[in-house]
Amino acid sequence: MAIITLTTDFGNGSPYVAQMRGVILSIDPCATVVDVSHAIPPQDIRQGALVLAEVTPRFPPGSIHVAVIDPGVGSGRRIVYARFGEQQYVAPDNGLLSGLAGQGAALTIIELTAQRYWLPDPSPTFHGRDIMAPVAAHLSLGLDPAKLGPPLAELIQLEWPEARILAGKIEGEVVSIDSFGNLVTNITAEMLADVPTDLAVNVRCDEHETLGIYRAYADQPEMTLIALIGSSGRLELAIVGDSAKIMLGVRAGEKVTISW
Amino acid sequence: MAIITLTTDFGNGSPYVAQMRGVILSIDPCATVVDVSHAIPPQDIRQGALVLAEVTPRFPPGSIHVAVIDPGVGSGRRIVYARFGEQQYVAPDNGLLSGLAGQGAALTIIELTAQRYWLPDPSPTFHGRDIMAPVAAHLSLGLDPAKLGPPLAELIQLEWPEARILAGKIEGEVVSIDSFGNLVTNITAEMLADVPTDLAVNVRCDEHETLGIYRAYADQPEMTLIALIGSSGRLELAIVGDSAKIMLGVRAGEKVTISW
Amino acid sequence: MAIITLTTDFGNGSPYVAQMRGVILSIDPCATVVDVSHAIPPQDIRQGALVLAEVTPRFPPGSIHVAVIDPGVGSGRRIVYARFGEQQYVAPDNGLLSGLAGQGAALTIIELTAQRYWLPDPSPTFHGRDIMAPVAAHLSLGLDPAKLGPPLAELIQLEWPEARILAGKIEGEVVSIDSFGNLVTNITAEMLADVPTDLAVNVRCDEHETLGIYRAYADQPEMTLIALIGSSGRLELAIVGDSAKIMLGVRAGEKVTISW
Repeated sequence: MAIITLTTDFGNGSPYVAQMRGVILSIDPCATVVDVSHAIPPQDIRQGALVLAEVTPRFPPGSIHVAVIDPGVGSGRRIVYARFGEQQYVAPDNGLLSGLAGQGAALTIIELTAQRYWLPDPSPTFHGRDIMAPVAAHLSLGLDPAKLGPPLAELIQLEWPEARILAGKIEGEVVSIDSFGNLVTNITAEMLADVPTDLAVNVRCDEHETLGIYRAYADQPEMTLIALIGSSGRLELAIVGDSAKIMLGVRAGEKVTISW
Repeated sequence: MAIITLTTDFGNGSPYVAQMRGVILSIDPCATVVDVSHAIPPQDIRQGALVLAEVTPRFPPGSIHVAVIDPGVGSGRRIVYARFGEQQYVAPDNGLLSGLAGQGAALTIIELTAQRYWLPDPSPTFHGRDIMAPVAAHLSLGLDPAKLGPPLAELIQLEWPEARILAGKIEGEVVSIDSFGNLVTNITAEMLADVPTDLAVNVRCDEHETLGIYRAYADQPEMTLIALIGSSGRLELAIVGDSAKIMLGVRAGEKVTISW
Repeated sequence: MAIITLTTDFGNGSPYVAQMRGVILSIDPCATVVDVSHAIPPQDIRQGALVLAEVTPRFPPGSIHVAVIDPGVGSGRRIVYARFGEQQYVAPDNGLLSGLAGQGAALTIIELTAQRYWLPDPSPTFHGRDIMAPVAAHLSLGLDPAKLGPPLAELIQLEWPEARILAGKIEGEVVSIDSFGNLVTNITAEMLADVPTDLAVNVRCDEHETLGIYRAYADQPEMTLIALIGSSGRLELAIVGDSAKIMLGVRAGEKVTISW
């Protein structure tokens, strides 16, 4: 018995998620099944990869994370088991696991080919239910991952936009926007170690700019644009008490520049 | 201890669902309570019935499925316990269980009248919390369903639109639209057994048409209209990588014709 | 091992909720973690307080309710443990627990200061994950709340609009609107004990009015404005089979007058 988490782009309230839960509980009725998120934008592998990287390391060692953002379902794309650190993953090999590199190289990668751990006659349009869910449930019951199929040398990697540290400035971009409308960037706290923390630092995004990098939203008055290190350890731009996404009209991909 | 699932039209994030969970866990703290969906459109008994039929057979034998799409709450409509195959249901008798006929006739039907298994003084506006949730929790603890009330001969049935097989064509309709915007019809894989699988087959919905019936979304290029057998075993119309619902402006009830 | 509930304004499907679940399960893998709601409007402490008051008393004695509507995160606002009746709460001290007074005075209030029960280096922007979630998990494992920090005398209280009973009328207001669009007021069933139940009673909200107070939605025809005692034991205005919120364009705060 283990913890199995689910991350999909099926949408909040989707009965497809419930079908996966039913399949898992039919094989391992004692599994603890936990939702990570089903609100990943449809077929947005990159956002799925970010969420997996952000959330899954918080779970107990040995947890099994099933991720189904799978626009290539039914095509030749592989389905894989992978272990990063003490976390286990079951997902299509389409880049969805490529945000986990921060946890070190994958310790084990296996291509799922052993059909005895799948549902019979898997639907070509829903491998999440018919292949990934039952495999996760068998792992939860203690199945040795080596029985799932042959080892693979590597996973498909997405290109990730990297922030750049230059003389007197750092150039990055907005990589995701949270449910409060806060703009989360790819500029990490480590990159900011040598940046002055006073008002001499300028943070710019599109035509908007603000001075200083703060600790907490409450450090500035309501309706102020603020830059701070968010809970993911990355630079975030927020409107205190409101949505920066709506107020500024900014999207993922927008450039963010810190200069001092 | 059993698995109890919840299907309602209360909306994602509704505190009404949490009240039901609290009531269940207060009676059986060891019950495993699982959401099927709370995103059924308000008072849409037909969509609720479809979701129950699609999802609940995936759960382990003995699971207890509580369904609350209940526009007649507080009126004379009955509340029932029913068993179909190895699955158990607690729901208003308003047609919500009439999609389960595919699992065979109900083996047991009981009208809930034994008030000792309800909360005291049930609210006339929320029988899901005050009658159905506590009854499900008592069943989870092992209560014999026969104690819930007197047996009934039959359940109220909705009229279901049936697809028709004619000479050289099949006429059906869109019965639901999933969270990806895929159009799911009432034409089953069995009905298509004798239909040619090559490009000689024409699938039409409203003014839109496509040739051939495919295996997987990935069998056609992005932004193409495709017909395939979806994960529910029924004909589905999709736009590859996008939403057919939005792109085609089609609603549930739209006619779909296959001809060859 | 206990039941831990989560109430936040993070939005349905938010990965922030999943991070809290991961933290809790990493400390107490056997905790039963239940969602109350994550659809509280962002930073709306009052709606959060109403939902906590409505839902949490339904849970088994000893349940631990974590509530994170926390616009002051990272400021000097306190974080508290409080016990009301047999329910336990972990929340910022910003008024979020001030709807619980109906359960009697808090029996115990403690300020969270003992950092050994927090995650190391808590993020100044996410105390829900780094302080409240781990504290709840330690409580679930049996930690004595007295070890969390020093006792406090009282909690911060919100001002609550009180309905007024006058000669021949009661004046109240809409305090929340549910997912069906029903308008829930602060006029309780107790206040209505002496009000005539026949058509001589007039219920008015904005320019809309209706005669009589009914038992159930089904007591009036579809599309009719109806007043009844809802499942929370408070007067509710509804449009039978539709959304009063949308049909009447009414918001929380709108005055409601009963006269006879």
